Amino acid sequence: MIISVIGGQHPEDPESLRLAERVGELVARSGAVLLCGGLTGVMEAACRGAKSAGGLTVGILPGGDASEANPSVDVAIVTAMGTARNVIVVRTADALIAIDGSYGTLSEMAHALEQGKRVVSLGAWDLVRAGVEASRVLTADTPQEAVRLALAEAARGTTTGRPRPQP
Amino acid sequence: MIISVIGGQHPEDPESLRLAERVGELVARSGAVLLCGGLTGVMEAACRGAKSAGGLTVGILPGGDASEANPSVDVAIVTAMGTARNVIVVRTADALIAIDGSYGTLSEMAHALEQGKRVVSLGAWDLVRAGVEASRVLTADTPQEAVRLALAEAARGTTTGRPRPQP
Amino acid sequence: MIISVIGGQHPEDPESLRLAERVGELVARSGAVLLCGGLTGVMEAACRGAKSAGGLTVGILPGGDASEANPSVDVAIVTAMGTARNVIVVRTADALIAIDGSYGTLSEMAHALEQGKRVVSLGAWDLVRAGVEASRVLTADTPQEAVRLALAEAARGTTTGRPRPQP
Amino acid sequence: MIISVIGGQHPEDPESLRLAERVGELVARSGAVLLCGGLTGVMEAACRGAKSAGGLTVGILPGGDASEANPSVDVAIVTAMGTARNVIVVRTADALIAIDGSYGTLSEMAHALEQGKRVVSLGAWDLVRAGVEASRVLTADTPQEAVRLALAEAARGTTTGRPRPQP
Repeated sequence: MIISVIGGQHPEDPESLRLAERVGELVARSGAVLLCGGLTGVMEAACRGAKSAGGLTVGILPGGDASEANPSVDVAIVTAMGTARNVIVVRTADALIAIDGSYGTLSEMAHALEQGKRVVSLGAWDLVRAGVEASRVLTADTPQEAVRLALAEAARGTTTGRPRPQP
Repeated sequence: MIISVIGGQHPEDPESLRLAERVGELVARSGAVLLCGGLTGVMEAACRGAKSAGGLTVGILPGGDASEANPSVDVAIVTAMGTARNVIVVRTADALIAIDGSYGTLSEMAHALEQGKRVVSLGAWDLVRAGVEASRVLTADTPQEAVRLALAEAARGTTTGRPRPQP
Repeated sequence: MIISVIGGQHPEDPESLRLAERVGELVARSGAVLLCGGLTGVMEAACRGAKSAGGLTVGILPGGDASEANPSVDVAIVTAMGTARNVIVVRTADALIAIDGSYGTLSEMAHALEQGKRVVSLGAWDLVRAGVEASRVLTADTPQEAVRLALAEAARGTTTGRPRPQP
Repeated sequence: MIISVIGGQHPEDPESLRLAERVGELVARSGAVLLCGGLTGVMEAACRGAKSAGGLTVGILPGGDASEANPSVDVAIVTAMGTARNVIVVRTADALIAIDGSYGTLSEMAHALEQGKRVVSLGAWDLVRAGVEASRVLTADTPQEAVRLALAEAARGTTTGRPRPQP
């Protein structure tokens, strides 16, 4: 089982890093693989948390050099495809947890919705206010709740029926 | 100059198709190339409008077969990269006009923001309500206004300062 | 109809540039769109030839900035996907003409073969010596012959039966 | 350290499968991660070998569904990017071992050369006969020799000086 944690390199709220680290730890404790975009910020905090619990971490890097991975990435996938790698981070996930409000995170939440996946939001973009169906975003208040919702989502196949036609 | 029209295959509101066709026509009249995802719905309507005004249309297709392009696409770029092609539709654009509210459109709006581009919204997702800076989304009420804003945006280089760090 | 000219930025043999320019010119005269990787060297020479004959040129760029396109590219597609864009250059083509011997060109010839397409070689890698079926590479001695073979290949659908299973 | 094994789904010579399985086993015994394209044939045999030795296996899938991974893939990366994923298989590798002669394998060997990496060939395409510099292809006669060469290549940074400019 693979859980993606999506979030930016420079979260405005430092609390995001603490949440991400705890999420990573809980993902690892569940036995799931922690997947992310492999860089700093939320991504690094999540990986660090996962490693603290002995988990396996995979980073899908945007650049062409494995050395851009944060030090807690076990397996660095080097795409050299820039932010097109966001699509891979989403598609590979059995469930996703979004933390913080960068635009890259917004793109990943959108790709998840487009792929028919629900997203667990832990302080991320409030897409319901923008018009996304409320049932498609699972709001969590704590890392524990976020991971619990993500594991349940992964267990049910992550899809809510047929994916929407993509534009 | 390249203007991308982004929008879904199956817009809920048929009015979107009429708006898209008019936008396509006005883009072509301005002398700009009309770029889109190459499929049906909003994309096809925009291409049809552009062709009615003698414009050039380019479609960036998600699948592996040029025959999936709508009949008003002049140059069909075949990516076989699925929705990762959305990133190319956005990155190639000097300015973008979003019409309708599919999740693929949402992903393209997010990629535009992440790339430091502003988006012209003609009845698309109201991202400001979700927390996006108001200055990053240019709201238009008519096709004329949408194209005018997009051309101005393209003329100024399409960027609003440095792109945000991407997650 | 779209004909791709594939070749490197720094061909060892300057004659390659003369051949590429003439190929570009003849492709444009035939009414086909000239597609390439959009950069310098063989790509630029082919575009320049096509423009001299009033043709339309499209460049699929590896980087994230349209300004890296050579000055004879009409439509610059900005992928920011590095050499993964080679796959798009190949997949979009109704037929391909390979000129010169860079490793990027070799990768594009290989992708063409993998996609079930034959390649016209005008002084490019001699893949038959490496074991490729002789019927899959069409050797041309002049730009005229190369373009004639490519147009015939495009007319027949470019495929030689079913594509090989891909690894 | 990540070693990629590249090879087709339907190798003509069944011996390729036996070689791939042994290579996978030896890669795992060395402690390196086994990376491949995640499908059947050579890819599956290599993964099975790695698992028999308790290794970690990663498959970079071309399609959009994790279920297409062979049963010996531990971490299935879902790209939905078709054969553009070949570029990722190559770029992620610290060293590559090519087995068999499919066209997809040929494309991966070419991408490796383009990225400035040398390739270990265990019965794969004889690219030296096509004009590739002899020093860029390391020919192995046995799985043991292939893995020994790959590990040495990975240890030295995998590059032979600066990458060639890419076309």
